[in-house]
Amino acid sequence: MRPINVFEYEALAQERLHPAVWDYYSDGANDTVTLRENRAAFERIRLRPRVLVDVTSIDMATTLLGSPVAMPICIAPSAIHGAACEDGECATARAAGALGTLMAASTESTRTMEEIAQAATGPLWFQLYFSSHTRAHAERLIRRAEVAGYRAIALTVDSSRWGQKERHARSDATFDWPLTGNFIRDPLPSAIDGAADGAAITWNDVDWLRSITSLPLVLKGILTAEDASLCAERGIDGVLVSNHGGRQLDTVAATIDALPEVAEAVAGRCEVYLDGGVRRGTDVLKALALGARAVFVGRAVLWGLSVAGAEGAQHVLELLRDELATAMALAGRPTLASIDGSVVQRPLRR
Amino acid sequence: MRPINVFEYEALAQERLHPAVWDYYSDGANDTVTLRENRAAFERIRLRPRVLVDVTSIDMATTLLGSPVAMPICIAPSAIHGAACEDGECATARAAGALGTLMAASTESTRTMEEIAQAATGPLWFQLYFSSHTRAHAERLIRRAEVAGYRAIALTVDSSRWGQKERHARSDATFDWPLTGNFIRDPLPSAIDGAADGAAITWNDVDWLRSITSLPLVLKGILTAEDASLCAERGIDGVLVSNHGGRQLDTVAATIDALPEVAEAVAGRCEVYLDGGVRRGTDVLKALALGARAVFVGRAVLWGLSVAGAEGAQHVLELLRDELATAMALAGRPTLASIDGSVVQRPLRR
Amino acid sequence: MRPINVFEYEALAQERLHPAVWDYYSDGANDTVTLRENRAAFERIRLRPRVLVDVTSIDMATTLLGSPVAMPICIAPSAIHGAACEDGECATARAAGALGTLMAASTESTRTMEEIAQAATGPLWFQLYFSSHTRAHAERLIRRAEVAGYRAIALTVDSSRWGQKERHARSDATFDWPLTGNFIRDPLPSAIDGAADGAAITWNDVDWLRSITSLPLVLKGILTAEDASLCAERGIDGVLVSNHGGRQLDTVAATIDALPEVAEAVAGRCEVYLDGGVRRGTDVLKALALGARAVFVGRAVLWGLSVAGAEGAQHVLELLRDELATAMALAGRPTLASIDGSVVQRPLRR
Amino acid sequence: MRPINVFEYEALAQERLHPAVWDYYSDGANDTVTLRENRAAFERIRLRPRVLVDVTSIDMATTLLGSPVAMPICIAPSAIHGAACEDGECATARAAGALGTLMAASTESTRTMEEIAQAATGPLWFQLYFSSHTRAHAERLIRRAEVAGYRAIALTVDSSRWGQKERHARSDATFDWPLTGNFIRDPLPSAIDGAADGAAITWNDVDWLRSITSLPLVLKGILTAEDASLCAERGIDGVLVSNHGGRQLDTVAATIDALPEVAEAVAGRCEVYLDGGVRRGTDVLKALALGARAVFVGRAVLWGLSVAGAEGAQHVLELLRDELATAMALAGRPTLASIDGSVVQRPLRR
Repeated sequence: MRPINVFEYEALAQERLHPAVWDYYSDGANDTVTLRENRAAFERIRLRPRVLVDVTSIDMATTLLGSPVAMPICIAPSAIHGAACEDGECATARAAGALGTLMAASTESTRTMEEIAQAATGPLWFQLYFSSHTRAHAERLIRRAEVAGYRAIALTVDSSRWGQKERHARSDATFDWPLTGNFIRDPLPSAIDGAADGAAITWNDVDWLRSITSLPLVLKGILTAEDASLCAERGIDGVLVSNHGGRQLDTVAATIDALPEVAEAVAGRCEVYLDGGVRRGTDVLKALALGARAVFVGRAVLWGLSVAGAEGAQHVLELLRDELATAMALAGRPTLASIDGSVVQRPLRR
Repeated sequence: MRPINVFEYEALAQERLHPAVWDYYSDGANDTVTLRENRAAFERIRLRPRVLVDVTSIDMATTLLGSPVAMPICIAPSAIHGAACEDGECATARAAGALGTLMAASTESTRTMEEIAQAATGPLWFQLYFSSHTRAHAERLIRRAEVAGYRAIALTVDSSRWGQKERHARSDATFDWPLTGNFIRDPLPSAIDGAADGAAITWNDVDWLRSITSLPLVLKGILTAEDASLCAERGIDGVLVSNHGGRQLDTVAATIDALPEVAEAVAGRCEVYLDGGVRRGTDVLKALALGARAVFVGRAVLWGLSVAGAEGAQHVLELLRDELATAMALAGRPTLASIDGSVVQRPLRR
Repeated sequence: MRPINVFEYEALAQERLHPAVWDYYSDGANDTVTLRENRAAFERIRLRPRVLVDVTSIDMATTLLGSPVAMPICIAPSAIHGAACEDGECATARAAGALGTLMAASTESTRTMEEIAQAATGPLWFQLYFSSHTRAHAERLIRRAEVAGYRAIALTVDSSRWGQKERHARSDATFDWPLTGNFIRDPLPSAIDGAADGAAITWNDVDWLRSITSLPLVLKGILTAEDASLCAERGIDGVLVSNHGGRQLDTVAATIDALPEVAEAVAGRCEVYLDGGVRRGTDVLKALALGARAVFVGRAVLWGLSVAGAEGAQHVLELLRDELATAMALAGRPTLASIDGSVVQRPLRR
Repeated sequence: MRPINVFEYEALAQERLHPAVWDYYSDGANDTVTLRENRAAFERIRLRPRVLVDVTSIDMATTLLGSPVAMPICIAPSAIHGAACEDGECATARAAGALGTLMAASTESTRTMEEIAQAATGPLWFQLYFSSHTRAHAERLIRRAEVAGYRAIALTVDSSRWGQKERHARSDATFDWPLTGNFIRDPLPSAIDGAADGAAITWNDVDWLRSITSLPLVLKGILTAEDASLCAERGIDGVLVSNHGGRQLDTVAATIDALPEVAEAVAGRCEVYLDGGVRRGTDVLKALALGARAVFVGRAVLWGLSVAGAEGAQHVLELLRDELATAMALAGRPTLASIDGSVVQRPLRR
């Protein structure tokens, strides 16, 4: 039977994926405290529904840095979709396009960014990993992204080192991982192994990046008011509250718990998004209520992709969209503008 | 052996009911966070018992919108009692009457409201579902309710869409559901499928409803101070704090947690009731202490009905009544008037 | 092997007791929320140990209403010790005497209060149940207690009705319960069945009791500041913070959580004690820190009694005494006077 | 396969150790509330990572009472390493030296302090147990420590009695425990059995100790602001926040929960360290953020020692060091000076 929620997709994906791929996709860093907290924190927040509001028509269309999207649910960058389905990120992009939403393609995509752009009918962002020592390589990637029509650069800033995913590290399954498409034309400098060392960058690198492209810049991996303020002060266009799906520094806060301080610090000076743990339409509603303009979904889309390719990814997005529509209707908030902090009641810190 | 509490009735009901019916009655929306929270929230509240008070005589008689009842425990509207026992809502009504209490009959009752009224010896309310597009149909139902002697209209306001009950949706059991009695004489307009679209209404519809009947009006499904204030301002007679048994918007607060803000906002301007998770006499006492005039019991009565028809439903009500009497005695509050906020200690949010 | 803590005695007692007796002794009211909370609340409290204090000599001797005891750990009244061991309360009294501590004998003891007094070498209190309708009977019991040398009357005030112990009620085991010794000479008036109706009394009855005896009066079952204040104002000599071992009104607070408000309200005007959930020396220390002059132990002593008669009960008391000595030493509080509120850190309400 | 974290070492150690030794090493006092809380409290604290900081170079070198160490992770004193591996504390000392860190050798080491000093290449502290009645014996040990080059005396102050480790007490395994090396040359006075009576001392003994040696003095076992203030006032050089690994007074706070009040009370007047529950690099980071200059690791090192001798102990230290480096990098705190209270968010008590 066709899955009726994201958790059913997850269970099916575990059955169908090669164990090594399942372990890679699903694991979190170390003791997976943050991985689990991303979900638990959503469940701890209570919705406060208003009634007798006209919810005949639910309008969830918005824009991200000027690009219109049909819903505030976008696809988070994640690596190597080719391990989930043959078409890799091209399938994912078709799913995003079918729903009229945005996809952020990973530097480490199986398919090249040009192939993805050709498959996409919705807006695309290019997620960038680079380190202080690979500026030239990064610039080549950005030039390609500009040419291919990507609308923004989403720079990952939480990966100066790679978190240890221990179940993944323990996985004795062998799997012939597909190559990173973008690196075929632009191989990483041989002296630099990004996958081992991480993508260590500083504000200098961000300033450099800002100087070489006119694409809007989103920083992915902001979790504190302090860094959010710096982003706003330095003219960053968007802040993506993310803990890398619980895969980097274990025991950082759930993103939904970090979101309020980020949104408050930014105070409207740039757009704020969230990823991490989104599995239900009510999660999306909570994130919007606490200051996000949109959420990004990573693993959930991978589960759809693993189960039924583009169609599965599309269905996952449809499920989330429909659940969000139901949640907005039942909460009495038929438009995004009507969603404010009064929709939620947060627990005391924990 | 005869059950000695509601939980034993629940276990027996699960054994005896057709699986599809069990799933339908017992399920909650999505991840059932609210379904479970309805119970957990009651358990988190502590009672503060006074001693050496004269509790020889426990007086729990009260009135609901002027109708006297022998106890502040009434029967919540729930659909299709005919799936639980042959006599359906007529059996339930007899149970309510035997205890001298009030029953709110559902629009979606198996038996017609006229049959229920004939069986009832206690006061009745008529629970109404309608949408902006079915006013004419609703008016016909209300005229029938007036004629049949119903004392108030309990309008459900939390169901602009139907929440997804996923275990129920997954249930592969086939069951020949009985028809909705009220719709035999007054079929729903064929273009409108209320069960699919939900009962979307606005304050305009409430105003219309108020204009066409002089019956008192209760709004069922209020969970916030904001909506409670609107109710009071617009002359609504009663507010039923309800999350639809956790079946509509998942992750809304437990009703007992929402009750205080509703009661405070209403400030005595209309009556306040609660349903959701009531399984013990101590639950009733806590609800009264936090501002409810009475509680409504849905599933617990269905379990009694499923196990032993009218007699079972009656016994469930007797158990709750006796437990409430014991709780009032042991708490040193022999009258409803003596029950105030000092009876309970609430946890910090959560 | 000989048990090394109370929990091992409990496990052995469960093995050795007739199932009906085990169910009766061990059960709590309804959902056993309070029964479990009595333990959980102790575990939530943190000790704050001081170091480098001279703890060579631990002095835990004190007085209860003037009667010297070797330790602030006394035996709570509980019914029908004859179901645990042949000698019943005489065995218990010998255990108390061996430890130089006080025993409160229950109205519902298997052995008569005179037999118990003959066996005892430590001070005795007489726990009294009576109702407004059995004053004459109560007076006869009190006269006997005075003659037999009991030092105080501990009047149970939380039992206007009997809480429903549901596992006990469900127990299909048959057991030939021994008779209540005290009632052989003074049978309960036949029209009154105290066990069924409870012991409903009011302050009038307390005033009457005070008027007919010069024995000190302890009220057992106080859980609120309001009632504690009344006790102090009316010249009650001692207040025993008790929820009847979780056997009366379910979901009342753990006694250790209720103790602070009681102690604060009393403000030294009468003695304050606690029973409920005491299983460790650290529990005793926490109760003393939060305002108790002594704790009373019920089930723990019954487990000892069940396993090895007087010797078992004595060993349980020794274990608690030794654990308390260790806790006082390790907390740097070698005397009772040195134990104050700074020994503990309480969690926020829950 | 080689373990990749401390928990894998723990599991292997349990397999390889004699059950009696495993029970002895792993157990906590009584109900092990504090033992478990030591871990749980670390997991409850959230890290607040800063990004875009230059973390190319992580510098974790520091000093302890003037002795340089390569990292703020040292080896806590623990007894009888000879039960874990043939070379006992000599192996442990080699591991410490290999990592350039400090080891605190226990009075109850299997190897003599002189043998340990000969094996060590890093700085050593001598952990001292003594009681008021064994000053002469203690002085002989201190003189030996001075001669052997130990840099400080770490006096255990939380052991006036021995906590009851109940699984250990119940362990029926027989094991031929190795002797305490230091006592071969300096046997304990026969009338005094330190292991039975504990090491009861007072501030007088500390003053005496201070008077007989010029070695810096660290007090191990401080858990309160009150005692921390006394330490600072009396010129103690270092305070080790410790609950003896949950082996002494059960239900005291986790050390990471006690650390803030100690650090605040000391206010920089002496050095502050922590042991208890450290299993992850993030734990170390949290302790540093809350005021510790370094952490001490006991059981984790024993697990390494048990699995692979000196090499295993060294690997455990390497794992913790590397995890700390990753945590510092990912938290954007590349130096110890950059680690302050803003790195963590603590839950409300509890």
